[in-house]
Amino acid sequence: MAVKVGIIMGSQSDWPTMREAALILEELGIAYEKKIVSAHRTPDRLWDYGKTAADRGLHVIIAGAGGAAHLPGMMASKTRVPVIGVPVQTRALSGVDSLYSIVQMPKGFPVATMAIGAAGAANAGLMAAGILAISDPELAARLDDWRAALSASIPDEPQDE
Amino acid sequence: MAVKVGIIMGSQSDWPTMREAALILEELGIAYEKKIVSAHRTPDRLWDYGKTAADRGLHVIIAGAGGAAHLPGMMASKTRVPVIGVPVQTRALSGVDSLYSIVQMPKGFPVATMAIGAAGAANAGLMAAGILAISDPELAARLDDWRAALSASIPDEPQDE
Amino acid sequence: MAVKVGIIMGSQSDWPTMREAALILEELGIAYEKKIVSAHRTPDRLWDYGKTAADRGLHVIIAGAGGAAHLPGMMASKTRVPVIGVPVQTRALSGVDSLYSIVQMPKGFPVATMAIGAAGAANAGLMAAGILAISDPELAARLDDWRAALSASIPDEPQDE
Amino acid sequence: MAVKVGIIMGSQSDWPTMREAALILEELGIAYEKKIVSAHRTPDRLWDYGKTAADRGLHVIIAGAGGAAHLPGMMASKTRVPVIGVPVQTRALSGVDSLYSIVQMPKGFPVATMAIGAAGAANAGLMAAGILAISDPELAARLDDWRAALSASIPDEPQDE
Amino acid sequence: MAVKVGIIMGSQSDWPTMREAALILEELGIAYEKKIVSAHRTPDRLWDYGKTAADRGLHVIIAGAGGAAHLPGMMASKTRVPVIGVPVQTRALSGVDSLYSIVQMPKGFPVATMAIGAAGAANAGLMAAGILAISDPELAARLDDWRAALSASIPDEPQDE
Amino acid sequence: MAVKVGIIMGSQSDWPTMREAALILEELGIAYEKKIVSAHRTPDRLWDYGKTAADRGLHVIIAGAGGAAHLPGMMASKTRVPVIGVPVQTRALSGVDSLYSIVQMPKGFPVATMAIGAAGAANAGLMAAGILAISDPELAARLDDWRAALSASIPDEPQDE
Amino acid sequence: MAVKVGIIMGSQSDWPTMREAALILEELGIAYEKKIVSAHRTPDRLWDYGKTAADRGLHVIIAGAGGAAHLPGMMASKTRVPVIGVPVQTRALSGVDSLYSIVQMPKGFPVATMAIGAAGAANAGLMAAGILAISDPELAARLDDWRAALSASIPDEPQDE
Amino acid sequence: MAVKVGIIMGSQSDWPTMREAALILEELGIAYEKKIVSAHRTPDRLWDYGKTAADRGLHVIIAGAGGAAHLPGMMASKTRVPVIGVPVQTRALSGVDSLYSIVQMPKGFPVATMAIGAAGAANAGLMAAGILAISDPELAARLDDWRAALSASIPDEPQDE
Repeated sequence: MAVKVGIIMGSQSDWPTMREAALILEELGIAYEKKIVSAHRTPDRLWDYGKTAADRGLHVIIAGAGGAAHLPGMMASKTRVPVIGVPVQTRALSGVDSLYSIVQMPKGFPVATMAIGAAGAANAGLMAAGILAISDPELAARLDDWRAALSASIPDEPQDE
Repeated sequence: MAVKVGIIMGSQSDWPTMREAALILEELGIAYEKKIVSAHRTPDRLWDYGKTAADRGLHVIIAGAGGAAHLPGMMASKTRVPVIGVPVQTRALSGVDSLYSIVQMPKGFPVATMAIGAAGAANAGLMAAGILAISDPELAARLDDWRAALSASIPDEPQDE
Repeated sequence: MAVKVGIIMGSQSDWPTMREAALILEELGIAYEKKIVSAHRTPDRLWDYGKTAADRGLHVIIAGAGGAAHLPGMMASKTRVPVIGVPVQTRALSGVDSLYSIVQMPKGFPVATMAIGAAGAANAGLMAAGILAISDPELAARLDDWRAALSASIPDEPQDE
Repeated sequence: MAVKVGIIMGSQSDWPTMREAALILEELGIAYEKKIVSAHRTPDRLWDYGKTAADRGLHVIIAGAGGAAHLPGMMASKTRVPVIGVPVQTRALSGVDSLYSIVQMPKGFPVATMAIGAAGAANAGLMAAGILAISDPELAARLDDWRAALSASIPDEPQDE
Repeated sequence: MAVKVGIIMGSQSDWPTMREAALILEELGIAYEKKIVSAHRTPDRLWDYGKTAADRGLHVIIAGAGGAAHLPGMMASKTRVPVIGVPVQTRALSGVDSLYSIVQMPKGFPVATMAIGAAGAANAGLMAAGILAISDPELAARLDDWRAALSASIPDEPQDE
Repeated sequence: MAVKVGIIMGSQSDWPTMREAALILEELGIAYEKKIVSAHRTPDRLWDYGKTAADRGLHVIIAGAGGAAHLPGMMASKTRVPVIGVPVQTRALSGVDSLYSIVQMPKGFPVATMAIGAAGAANAGLMAAGILAISDPELAARLDDWRAALSASIPDEPQDE
Repeated sequence: MAVKVGIIMGSQSDWPTMREAALILEELGIAYEKKIVSAHRTPDRLWDYGKTAADRGLHVIIAGAGGAAHLPGMMASKTRVPVIGVPVQTRALSGVDSLYSIVQMPKGFPVATMAIGAAGAANAGLMAAGILAISDPELAARLDDWRAALSASIPDEPQDE
Repeated sequence: MAVKVGIIMGSQSDWPTMREAALILEELGIAYEKKIVSAHRTPDRLWDYGKTAADRGLHVIIAGAGGAAHLPGMMASKTRVPVIGVPVQTRALSGVDSLYSIVQMPKGFPVATMAIGAAGAANAGLMAAGILAISDPELAARLDDWRAALSASIPDEPQDE
């Protein structure tokens, strides 16, 4: 199965968040690769990743980063492959810094920004699935099932714990 | 040419912002429709739009809204078609309210959030193009050209005005 | 005793907050129902709840949600029954996202927004009581007593613990 | 026609905002009174207003204020009549100060907080109408009509201006 | 020794913060009284306290409160005695709500606002001392000594712990 | 008449704001001096002002500054004379930077912080008056009159303009 | 005279701000070059600029950008030459987005961040001068003079305009 | 080896943060001194430090402070030696107060501001190294090595823990 989604992140410390994206892709049967690509510490790795992404057959890139989170936006400048950005929660500013750095991109280089933290990472996986499902009816059906199962899992009344 | 992109917005007052998305789609030769779909004033219109989107052949929905901007998120709950959200700038809170309402979606229902205001709307058009380009090599080439032209337009030195 | 107040919330995780509203209603002898109604995961449940609320005899709806908290506002668009919104505290943004998503409603669809978290939920119960008390002198008297007891419970001087 | 709604505000400068509430009440045929009641400059007026509100037959109080906007909350402490609060936009902090001062009430004294500024004031009128409509079927019908007319006024497509 | 400083606070839960003010007053030999005066739960107590403050010989009032912290500002509207406000830290908004509600007073009714939390409470005690020291040379000398001792306590170099 | 109040500010551009403090002092018949004392551009002037303030007979210092507004806090470190701080509104951050820089003083060096901008400056004059009035019954009476006149100036109803 | 300072910015629209840095360098007799280097639109230009900066003899780089302002941080990742960052004011978020994106750099890649807007740009020029002055006594003397002249320009009293 | 870098901080409690700057300097073989210099508690120490800094041969000053963090800016006003500011994280405002107080300096007195907290302190050490490396080729080589080692330490893929 060809790898169509790349999950990249700025550092090992982002993995507990970004793993949520990987789990969703696994649930939906989507092959992915995962890499640490630091915009600042390994800029050439970022360059190479971006320049080869389309030719390697990647259809979507999920990029997570925290603080002055430049990875998603810089990746968007190096490839036309759609980039989904996940703002990782930070210590002092709770991820508002990550959010602003990722979402406030100038005209020309969109980053599809998700919510701060783990929910955002899971949604990045779902957004990637939704994009791939446009031309993959079987994936579309699996995604519909996933969504239906989520809805069906909601109980009618809240329970005391 | 089949309409693959729907641009929807909460009210007429969002159009000066959302027109930027339409202009990009026109530049890239992508057919689109544009509708006013208010989450609060026309919820049934939202429902119908969401329920028929996939079957009508829409591949991407661009949704702009301001304030308690529920339109993008509610649309994402009604269809698996990827939803790109544009936070429209607001008077009192400058669009931070729009941004939070659009980006902070719970697990299950991603909205691909863009920057606040006109730049975000233009980028919504480009993100839609990037998604469609995955399976459309000619569009991919046009998008590459658009990006190359943008880069080529940058002068070497700033000029006094 | 007819159920006049509906307490709804986006997920089970909101219940520890929203229970405060239920406790107040119980203290004041007001019958209520409690439901999980997720704007995004169960939109049709939201639709049905809203469309039948007035006819079922509900006089007030208390709706709690966190993050991109669309439930209170969407409910307000589906029914004329007054909706009281409770912003549930969130991890990254402490409920400021919930607050903005609930309070910044456009003209036409008010949500009576309470404080973030448990105090807000308790106050939602009291606001519901105040609304019902307009046409229920016995409840008005019980509410007056509740308020007087609260005031009487305040000691004159703070105590070291 | 008995006056059931009191519109109060901290100063004359709040009137251009609060007039939106009055206009809605007029559209819906609801009698109201309007007063300047400053929490800080006329605290005794606030006291008297609060103490007599229920006995004078007021069913709802709409209170607008800006900055350290104490009026709505202090009114809520003096009367069981439901208080709807409108945060007036301010110069330096855009009404975030007003919003926090009004919405963050402690347990015991809810204020039904609306959006910042004119939309919030209009919604205060609609919330008052919704509350009164609970026991007034004719008003309920007028409110339903008002809402239906609002929905019907939304065009299908945005127009260039 | 006549009581010249009143420390008031909205609830027992504010005392761990406000005790810092009391400790400073004790260190400087200034007599004080401490009371719980809730703006919302005991408004009449607030009224009485304010109306009698000057006549009872109070020279300074230190008022601490959290959330929609109306106590300092309402006290300032009821008495010409200078009011020093202490924003108590809150759960969701960390005391930014308290700070805005206390500091953003309209023209006519100043509250001398201190930092959020315990440091602010201690400083409220020192500000009270500074005000009383204007006409009390012995207290001025004690305050000078306190300040000199604080400065002298600062080591030259930081130490590993 | 001895000068008991010093109004200082960081630059000429602060004067349109700080003049409001001067006007109040003039209305109340309180002699004052006004100086430009820049914490950063004229630190030695700040030093001298602080070291001589008490001996020169100043009873209160009103200090206004914007941005990284260090003047009020540094003055508080150089003199026991009470310092009232006025956060001047700024271009990018609207005075939130000024407010935080002035109010968040560490234990030991309180600054009596007022609201952002012109209302805060006027209130600085009133706070100074309140402090001086503690030992000046005639000023206390004038201040009471000023407050009574303010209250009496409030009309009963708002007027259309 | 060798060019030791490079002023770079993300777009022509940053020049009215960044010109303030150039003016300071001219006043102090420091040769500089000015370039438009967009992190997103001309990433390869950024790469080349960074890789050759030290060898070309640049001692300091001043980089201005707005929004998701990635230029200063990416430049810091490509060269050991000290990078001074200037957050350009933005429409919706007033430059808070620019500030967070520039200042919140991860360990390893500092950006010497200045104030938002024109004052920050001027200060970038002064910071560059201070750095160069370490090993250039004549420049140190000119910088001392510039600072002394600034201090001497402050009048003693504010003037009505 | 001459001491060229001074690390100063407002209090002992800042040392756990500022130690990160010291550790970097030690790794890079740069001699430094460390002092507690409180802007408010020991203003004369600040004065002396600033006035003698250049003559004592200091080339860079690293200053850390929290809250109304006046130390870096006041030091910048007393010496032309470049000042690097580190905003220490605070309890209520998470260091946003520190950041604004340090970065928003007026024209004339730049502070090279780093990220909030420990990462910012480490980066202050690296920025100091980068400045000293301009005229010290051996240090420049060590800094290049340090940066290369950091980049080389990044694994290719994230690991489950």
